[in-house]
Amino acid sequence: MADPNDPYLIISSDCHAGLPTEEYRPYLDSRFHRAFDEFLAGREARREAMTRLGVRNEAFANKWFSDNEEGLRGGWDAGQRLKELDGDGVAAEVVFPDADAVDSQTAAPFGVGLGLSGDQDPELGMAGAQAHNRWLAEFVGQNPERHCGVALLPITAEPAKVVAEIHRAKESGLGALMIPSMWVDKEPYHDRRYDPVWAAAAETGMPLVTHSGAAPREEYGDHLGIYVSEVTWWPARPLWFLLWSGVFERHPGLRFGVAESGCWWLPNLLWFMDRLYLGAHGGKKLSPFAELRRPPSEYLDRQVFICATNTKRRELAQRYEIGVDNILWGSDFPHPEGTWPTTRAWLRNTFHDIPVAETRRMLGLAAAEVFGFDVQKLDPIARRIGPTPADLGQPADQAAVEASWARSREVGRHWLTDHDFPALGVN
Amino acid sequence: MADPNDPYLIISSDCHAGLPTEEYRPYLDSRFHRAFDEFLAGREARREAMTRLGVRNEAFANKWFSDNEEGLRGGWDAGQRLKELDGDGVAAEVVFPDADAVDSQTAAPFGVGLGLSGDQDPELGMAGAQAHNRWLAEFVGQNPERHCGVALLPITAEPAKVVAEIHRAKESGLGALMIPSMWVDKEPYHDRRYDPVWAAAAETGMPLVTHSGAAPREEYGDHLGIYVSEVTWWPARPLWFLLWSGVFERHPGLRFGVAESGCWWLPNLLWFMDRLYLGAHGGKKLSPFAELRRPPSEYLDRQVFICATNTKRRELAQRYEIGVDNILWGSDFPHPEGTWPTTRAWLRNTFHDIPVAETRRMLGLAAAEVFGFDVQKLDPIARRIGPTPADLGQPADQAAVEASWARSREVGRHWLTDHDFPALGVN
Repeated sequence: MADPNDPYLIISSDCHAGLPTEEYRPYLDSRFHRAFDEFLAGREARREAMTRLGVRNEAFANKWFSDNEEGLRGGWDAGQRLKELDGDGVAAEVVFPDADAVDSQTAAPFGVGLGLSGDQDPELGMAGAQAHNRWLAEFVGQNPERHCGVALLPITAEPAKVVAEIHRAKESGLGALMIPSMWVDKEPYHDRRYDPVWAAAAETGMPLVTHSGAAPREEYGDHLGIYVSEVTWWPARPLWFLLWSGVFERHPGLRFGVAESGCWWLPNLLWFMDRLYLGAHGGKKLSPFAELRRPPSEYLDRQVFICATNTKRRELAQRYEIGVDNILWGSDFPHPEGTWPTTRAWLRNTFHDIPVAETRRMLGLAAAEVFGFDVQKLDPIARRIGPTPADLGQPADQAAVEASWARSREVGRHWLTDHDFPALGVN
Repeated sequence: MADPNDPYLIISSDCHAGLPTEEYRPYLDSRFHRAFDEFLAGREARREAMTRLGVRNEAFANKWFSDNEEGLRGGWDAGQRLKELDGDGVAAEVVFPDADAVDSQTAAPFGVGLGLSGDQDPELGMAGAQAHNRWLAEFVGQNPERHCGVALLPITAEPAKVVAEIHRAKESGLGALMIPSMWVDKEPYHDRRYDPVWAAAAETGMPLVTHSGAAPREEYGDHLGIYVSEVTWWPARPLWFLLWSGVFERHPGLRFGVAESGCWWLPNLLWFMDRLYLGAHGGKKLSPFAELRRPPSEYLDRQVFICATNTKRRELAQRYEIGVDNILWGSDFPHPEGTWPTTRAWLRNTFHDIPVAETRRMLGLAAAEVFGFDVQKLDPIARRIGPTPADLGQPADQAAVEASWARSREVGRHWLTDHDFPALGVN
């Protein structure tokens, strides 16, 4: 797309799809059908618990489902889904599990969707994941150029089985792997037992992603604010376990991402980790970090990405610290926390004074590279449905916009550019 | 101090003192002497483990002890301590446990110093804490106007005993309470079992503080970077457990602080929590936060403080989001991560372009209010030893300095002041 006024090629790096739970039965190995019946029988109790804990708001739920009945079927109906993506101007998407984030009516078997965690029974966990992965491959296979399906990978199971599932998922047409945010009582991600898994992910070109959802709920009681305040920390946590234990050094082809946890936490983390590696005063009594051969931010730029979902203005102001190419926007369709069905208005509110060239990267082109979308194939779709820079309120003459961010761009990661302070936002 | 060129009254909100471990014996109830012998017998093995994990660097340790032999005795020798404080220009200090952060030769009995955690045996934990608290009361009692002793409070023990220890510590002359960062398998801090403890802390005017140190080390292997990357998160964590469960609402006289974890994480947290409480889009499906009656930042300004220790330039750039009065500087004497014995140079490097009035708050006056120091009594000491604004490189005419920060100050907490982006640093 050579013309600066061309429509945007938008790729949502964070969307969700899942069957109404009971319909997973044909995709589940039959020896697990009895356990599946027990899982289904517990649904009402789980929903009541969600309501009691405040995660489910009865009045909100009723309005959400009545207002969006037709569109929500896009959670598992491919035709409806394309209508919804088109309506939002989204040409392609990365598809995580669990379409229904209000009533959990589309939970993957045995809770291995967004709740994927090290506390699941390994055998049931793999069975549930495979059921979802089989269905998802069929689902995204109907329009493969527009979807990158994320396979569920219960990575704490037996390594050979985990590696086999990576290859099976890849061959079935899926394009990425979701691993648990929490290993609970299993081996943490620095453990060498996972090396064959990292190698297989790199070999198949399947990015590994954590997604917010799992957290130590048993510690929170019914205090929902505690959960929300730290549920973005747990999926980010594997990043520094992988980084400091040298996984990115040993597996330079591995790509790792954190989804739906925002990206506001990253600049401080990078500042902290780079300085530690580069010999900051506070780390002088410690032994050197032998597993790394370069500062953490270099691994980040080479191998890490953030599916930042409904990106906030505060986060965009920090993009020169985070790295523009490390921020992948997402709509979170069809979750109510996301921008659907009013994505165009959200984008205008958020990006109106962000340079067009950077907006193109964050809204789609960076995600295309990470997840392997074919931009040539998506181009006609984007031309048909994508909003233009003018639609986002971005001026045709970009000189003033570029100038307003010049200081922030120049300062960048101030700890690496000899600037004293961060410079965020426009001048 | 009316004259703008007066020396600074500096109060370090984070210092450390502790006896050489074996000398705690007379302060420990005799029925624990046998257990204490076993604890002492394990010292060498613990030190070897620290070296193996990279937390202890043999070459650094040798140089540190030979370069600073005399000054390090100030960790438990009151006369030497005053010399070191004077040398650094520090008029008063808040005294946490464990003087030796290199070889752990001054660890409080049973590891209840900086390692205070919910995994300790409740009886041994309280015994070790009381031994340290008894010694510390004697120690700070030699120059009470210059020291606020922090009592160790193994809060997960039986509540009546915990409350009794608060009153005993207060009567003995101690001024604050250190609680574990981690409850491990004990009740989290939202549990109502702690209400009598919060009430007693408020009643006695003893601020509660967590301090960095404890972390789930068993998850890190020998990957030191993982530990360092998250050891500041664990002591901050109780803040949102207390806040969202309404502890600050039920106990408006309680003061809570986080020590030696920096303050760089706070602006993002406040932004996130305030918006959640004020009805941000992402929280609309959740039930309201009934335990709170005001936004999180209001509780913060009323009841929370950060002992930010060796404050970084990046953190100072964020002080209008954090709250100038919420940032308490500290030297960390006599730890090598801190600014001792070259605090004056550190202060000049860090504060040279920060307005004098704000520097006075962060370097001492805010800490005086939180910890109840008598500034009248400290005034002559400050006049004798304190660096002047000129010593810190701060210009006598403050107009240009004030103007350079005007935009950042005006924007403040941008989510509350109708500004779109944060504005950090000078213009």
